Amino acid sequence: MIAAKVSEKSIRRLSHYARCLRLAKIRGEFIMTSQQLAATCGISSAAVRRDLSIYGEFGKQGSGYKVNDLLANIENILGTTNPPSVIIIGAGSIGCALMISGLDGTGGYAYEAVFDNDPAKIGRQCGEKQIRSIEEIPGIIKEKKEVIAVIAVSRGAGQSALNTLVDAGCKAVLSFTLEPLKTPEDVEVRYVEVSTEFDVLTHSMRRKERGD
Amino acid sequence: MIAAKVSEKSIRRLSHYARCLRLAKIRGEFIMTSQQLAATCGISSAAVRRDLSIYGEFGKQGSGYKVNDLLANIENILGTTNPPSVIIIGAGSIGCALMISGLDGTGGYAYEAVFDNDPAKIGRQCGEKQIRSIEEIPGIIKEKKEVIAVIAVSRGAGQSALNTLVDAGCKAVLSFTLEPLKTPEDVEVRYVEVSTEFDVLTHSMRRKERGD
Repeated sequence: MIAAKVSEKSIRRLSHYARCLRLAKIRGEFIMTSQQLAATCGISSAAVRRDLSIYGEFGKQGSGYKVNDLLANIENILGTTNPPSVIIIGAGSIGCALMISGLDGTGGYAYEAVFDNDPAKIGRQCGEKQIRSIEEIPGIIKEKKEVIAVIAVSRGAGQSALNTLVDAGCKAVLSFTLEPLKTPEDVEVRYVEVSTEFDVLTHSMRRKERGD
Repeated sequence: MIAAKVSEKSIRRLSHYARCLRLAKIRGEFIMTSQQLAATCGISSAAVRRDLSIYGEFGKQGSGYKVNDLLANIENILGTTNPPSVIIIGAGSIGCALMISGLDGTGGYAYEAVFDNDPAKIGRQCGEKQIRSIEEIPGIIKEKKEVIAVIAVSRGAGQSALNTLVDAGCKAVLSFTLEPLKTPEDVEVRYVEVSTEFDVLTHSMRRKERGD
């Protein structure tokens, strides 16, 4: 059962449920009630039941959900049962911090490789991987077929990194650069923008201070 | 003129316009047309004009916007004319990478201090700042009054970090931890969740592959 059109908000919540279920699995729990899932996810149990009812019958009222089955079903809906490889472009402070933090417990994602265009960096260690030349990007995308690329290059170098990825056939990008990137329609780019999050937080905080 | 209720999507777009205007200012541009603003922000010029018309008359049709005035107006709407201080809790790889990348060009935000609970780290350098003990957090929040705190602690330590911040009076938090945090109603927590972004990208990529 694959639901074709799911809103981004639902996808994000399903992603959160999957994360909580993985943690439950690690803790050795086999059954979780919607109340327990709600409590660990920080969402109301009514919302959890509503979300899960949309995608079919995952558990019986009162008896809880089987952790393994529910996780498998959610990963099937997300399409993340066998997640794509992830590569990082830019072995600066953010790129290497991501490599070092790793992706344990995120449902099978792993950083496969990290690339930089600085000859002085190539061959050096960044987390558990050696930094490779950006010239090797087309090869790894061809080999892995499906790749998510993280752009963590320095300011002004984002578009050039994106162009390299697009030319190599990459269809999914997460960018940490603050530049808006010109992107072909069949490539999806998402952004992590810390300063925009700060603006949203500041706006909200000051609105509350004014009592709006 | 302060617009009281603005949707999060509008706030994010205004934040993007502000960023583009700051870059224009650095480049020495005094006037920008909606077309130019649209091109640098990666948004259609019709959308730019519509957004800006909501908040009053910022420029005349055809003659463009004065960069300084428009930026000041947008910062006024965002409430970011004098942005709050930002502190980082957790001097691990992500916390220090944020300190090193800094916040130049983000409209006056700056990382004021970085804190850790590991005695071995306290006093060490992290970016341009020395790591301070988390015991000093209440003091800095009292001193600065308005503070955005970035939680970049290791897995499992997020709630304890949040509790320390809440007890000290912090009202705005950006968390890089993957834990959902129990938060009082008057405190806003936003999350940077790289693995959820990967799930959204994977879902979208695989839906396209299936031709949905």
